[in-house]
Amino acid sequence: MRSKQIYDYILTNIERGEWGAHDKLPSVRSLAAELGVNRLTVFKVYKLLKQHGVTYVKEKSGYYVSPSKSAVELDYFNSKNSSTAIQLTSNLSDIHRVAANYKFSQAIIDPNLLPNLFLSEYVKKVFDKYPKLMGSYSTPQGDEELRDVLCQYFMRQYRVDLTIDEILITTGAQQAIDLLARILIRPLDAILVERPTYSAAIDIFRGHGARLIPVEFTPEGYDLEAIEKLMKQHRPRMFYMNPTFHNPTGYTLPPSQRKQLVELAERYRCMLVEDDAFHDIYFDEGPPQPLFMYDTYGWVVYLRSFSKYVAPGLRICAVFARKSMIDPLITAKSLADNGTPLVTQKIFLHYYQSERMQQHLEKLRIALQIRRDVMEEELSAAPIDWRWTTPQGGLNIWLRLPSNISCGALLHNCFQQSISFVPGHICDPLNDMQSWIRLSYSLMNEIQIREGIQQLAQIAQRVAITDSQPMVNPK
Amino acid sequence: MRSKQIYDYILTNIERGEWGAHDKLPSVRSLAAELGVNRLTVFKVYKLLKQHGVTYVKEKSGYYVSPSKSAVELDYFNSKNSSTAIQLTSNLSDIHRVAANYKFSQAIIDPNLLPNLFLSEYVKKVFDKYPKLMGSYSTPQGDEELRDVLCQYFMRQYRVDLTIDEILITTGAQQAIDLLARILIRPLDAILVERPTYSAAIDIFRGHGARLIPVEFTPEGYDLEAIEKLMKQHRPRMFYMNPTFHNPTGYTLPPSQRKQLVELAERYRCMLVEDDAFHDIYFDEGPPQPLFMYDTYGWVVYLRSFSKYVAPGLRICAVFARKSMIDPLITAKSLADNGTPLVTQKIFLHYYQSERMQQHLEKLRIALQIRRDVMEEELSAAPIDWRWTTPQGGLNIWLRLPSNISCGALLHNCFQQSISFVPGHICDPLNDMQSWIRLSYSLMNEIQIREGIQQLAQIAQRVAITDSQPMVNPK
Repeated sequence: MRSKQIYDYILTNIERGEWGAHDKLPSVRSLAAELGVNRLTVFKVYKLLKQHGVTYVKEKSGYYVSPSKSAVELDYFNSKNSSTAIQLTSNLSDIHRVAANYKFSQAIIDPNLLPNLFLSEYVKKVFDKYPKLMGSYSTPQGDEELRDVLCQYFMRQYRVDLTIDEILITTGAQQAIDLLARILIRPLDAILVERPTYSAAIDIFRGHGARLIPVEFTPEGYDLEAIEKLMKQHRPRMFYMNPTFHNPTGYTLPPSQRKQLVELAERYRCMLVEDDAFHDIYFDEGPPQPLFMYDTYGWVVYLRSFSKYVAPGLRICAVFARKSMIDPLITAKSLADNGTPLVTQKIFLHYYQSERMQQHLEKLRIALQIRRDVMEEELSAAPIDWRWTTPQGGLNIWLRLPSNISCGALLHNCFQQSISFVPGHICDPLNDMQSWIRLSYSLMNEIQIREGIQQLAQIAQRVAITDSQPMVNPK
Repeated sequence: MRSKQIYDYILTNIERGEWGAHDKLPSVRSLAAELGVNRLTVFKVYKLLKQHGVTYVKEKSGYYVSPSKSAVELDYFNSKNSSTAIQLTSNLSDIHRVAANYKFSQAIIDPNLLPNLFLSEYVKKVFDKYPKLMGSYSTPQGDEELRDVLCQYFMRQYRVDLTIDEILITTGAQQAIDLLARILIRPLDAILVERPTYSAAIDIFRGHGARLIPVEFTPEGYDLEAIEKLMKQHRPRMFYMNPTFHNPTGYTLPPSQRKQLVELAERYRCMLVEDDAFHDIYFDEGPPQPLFMYDTYGWVVYLRSFSKYVAPGLRICAVFARKSMIDPLITAKSLADNGTPLVTQKIFLHYYQSERMQQHLEKLRIALQIRRDVMEEELSAAPIDWRWTTPQGGLNIWLRLPSNISCGALLHNCFQQSISFVPGHICDPLNDMQSWIRLSYSLMNEIQIREGIQQLAQIAQRVAITDSQPMVNPK
C-alpha cells in the first residue's frame, strides 16, 4: 500500500461527496486499520493533505475537509481516473448510425463479395467434425489447433521463428489494441500514433489516458529522423502503426524504412504495435514483409486480423508477440473474457486452411480493385480539384478537398442527400485535418459508387466558395 | 490536465528509469509545452516534488532527480498503477491445468449431457436462415433480434418492465464482470464480495485495485445488519453477489432478504451486481425471483449467463441494467472488443427459443441431481466427519473438512492419485478458509463420482491426524 494511493483515495472520496466540507476524516488509527497499512503512512498522507489545503486540523479533534479551499485544490489534485472507459464517445459511430443510400463511410466489405453460402455449408462440416464443439471451452490463449495452423503458415510464409506459445487469439483487432493499452499505458504516457490513424484506436488510447504524439504518414512513408527525435524527446511507450495499406490513407511504408524503424524501436525501447488488418487486400502486387519479421528482440507486436475479409461475423484476430509481451497479454485476455468463443475459432481454422479461401481472396482483390478504379474514374471526371494517391490495397481513398470546399458543409449536405463519408478530423489524433475525407469503396457496388460519387461531386460544386464570382444557387 | 496527473507522470518516469539520479528534469517551460498545460501548474508540481525530496534544485539551472532520497520517497509515492492487468496469477487456472482422472475441480457440465448432435444440426438451420451471417458484424450492444427475444422472455417470466435498450450481450459473464469493474472501480475503492465467492471475480477486482470487503454467506443467507454496517462504514461502490445456487457453496439467498438488500443498496448507493449463472440449474424447486426484479431505481445490474448449460462454446451472457449503467457499459464494451461475434449470438438466439431447449434443461437438471445424490451418498458412506449443506441447485458441494485433515495435505495427495478439487482458500477474498473444499459433480459421470469420492475418502483417512494414536502409514 502506497501513500500515493491513499492520497488519491481520500481525494476521490471528497470528490464523490462521501466526505463533505467540514466533515471529519476517519482517525489515523481507524483508516490505517481499514486499509491495512501502517499508521505512519496514513499520518504522512494526512499531513500532506493539510499542507495542500485539502484538510484542516482542529486541535485534539482531528482532520477535517476544508470548505472553500478544497474546491480550489481539487481542481489541481482531482484524481479523475482517465483510465475508466466512460468518458468516451466515438464520433465515428455517430456517422455510421446515419442511414444513407451511398455509404462511403463504412470500411466494410460488401457481404455480397463474401462466399457466404459456401461458408454456411462449410460450417456444417465443421460441426460434423467436432460434434461436441458447442459443449467445449477454449483456453484464454486460444484454440491450440488454430494457433498451430497459424504458426505453420507464418513460418512457411515468412521464414520466421515462431512457436504456438507466441500467438494469442482475440475477438477482433480492436480487442487486441485494448489489451495492449491496458498493459502498456498509464495515464499521461506518451505514445506515437500515425496521423491520420484508425479512429477507434484513438478512442481506446485516450480512454486509457495516453497523450497521443502524431507521426505524419505520407505516400513516401514516415520521416524517420522526426520519429527518432520524438522517441528521444517523449520516450513513448508504444507506436501504434498500420504500415500496410493504411487506414484511412491506403499508403504503405516502404521496406527500407521497416528495418530502420525496428532498430529505432530497440534503441529507444518503444514497442511497435503493427496492425496489419489489410495485408491480404492488395491489388497489383503483394505487400512488403511485416515489421514483425525484422524484429529480433521482441519490440514488435503483430496484429493480424482476418475478420474483415474472411468472415466479419466471426471476429478473429491473431496477436504475435514474444514472451515478454505475450504473457501479460494472455493474463489480460483471461481477465477480460477468459477466451474467444471456441465455435468461431474452429470455423475460422478450417476455412482459413482451405483451397477455397485462396480462391475467394483472389476474387475479392479483383472485385475491390474494380471498385477502386470506378471510384477514381468518377472522382477524376468531376470538375473539382481534389487530390488523392491511388491506394495499392485496403478499402479506402483518402481525398484532399480543394481549399474552397468546407468539409463540414460537404458532410452536412451529403447527409441530406443520403451520402455518407468519414470527415478527416475523426482520423486525426490532433482532431484537425479538416480538408480531408475518407471514401470507402468496399461496401457499395460499382453502380452505387458511380451514382454516389457523381452526386457527391455535384454537392461539392454547390458548396464550393469561389473567389471570383458570388455564390450561385443550384438550379 | 491536473497537477496530480503530472506529479504521477514524473514519478512514473523516474521509477521506470527514464530519468535517473542527478538527471535534470525538463524545464518548466518545455514540460508545460509538451503536456499542453499552464506553466504555473508545472511549476507547482515541481515545487511539490522538491518538498517531497524527489528532486533538488541547482540555482539558475533547474530541477534534478534526488539520488538517495528518491528511492525512499518512491517507496511512498510510487505510482504503480494497480489497474493494469499484469500483476495477476490465478491459482484456479493452475489447478485446472493438473491432469486428473477424477476432475472434481471443474464446475463445467459434462459435454455428454449437452445436446451436441442436436445443436450441430441446429446450427446448420441457422446458417440456412441467415445465409449472409458470416459476412455481418454485430453492434457493440449485441444483436437486436437476440435482445428482443430475451426482453420478451424476461417480461413474460417476471412481469418486469424492460426494453431492449436495457440489455447488453457480452462474451460470457466474466467479460461482464470485467466491464463493470472498469466502470465502477478506482484503485483502493471498497467493494463487497461474498465469502466465499467466484475466484475469477476476485482476480478481476484485485486487478482493478479494489479492496475486497467480505460478506459471509451461510445457508441462511447474509447477515443484513452486518451488511448495513459495512455499507455505512466503507461506502462500497458495488456488491458482487451470486445469490442463487451460489458458487462455490450452492446456497441461495432467501426471498425475504432480497427485497431488503435492494433497499439497502438504494439507501447506501451501492450497486448490486447480481451474477445469476446457475438460475436454471435447480433441482426440486425453482429459484426465488432475482433481486433485479425488486429494483426500481437502477441499483441492480443483472448478469445472466447461458454459456454453461446451453453451449459453453458460444459464451453468451446477457447484462440487464438501467440507463445510468447500461450506457457506460455499452461504451466500455465498444472499446473492449466492439461487439460479441454475431455468429454465436444468432446460434444461441434460435436455440434458446426452441422447445428442445426446455426439454434439454429438464433432462439436464435430473442428470445433475442424480450426480449430486451419488456424490452425497459416497461422502456420507465414508467414515469421516466432513459436513456440507445439500445444494438445491448449481454444480458444487462445499465441503467442510474435519479439523484433523489438512487441506494442503489432502490436495497434494489427491493430485498424486489423479484426483482434483478446489481448495477453499482460492474462493476466499481473505485467502483463508483452509478447512473447506469445493467438489463439482457436473463434469464426472456417476461411476467416476463413486470411484473418485471413495478414493478421496481413503486419502482423507490417510492424511488425517488423530490425537489418540500416532499417525499410521498407509499399507
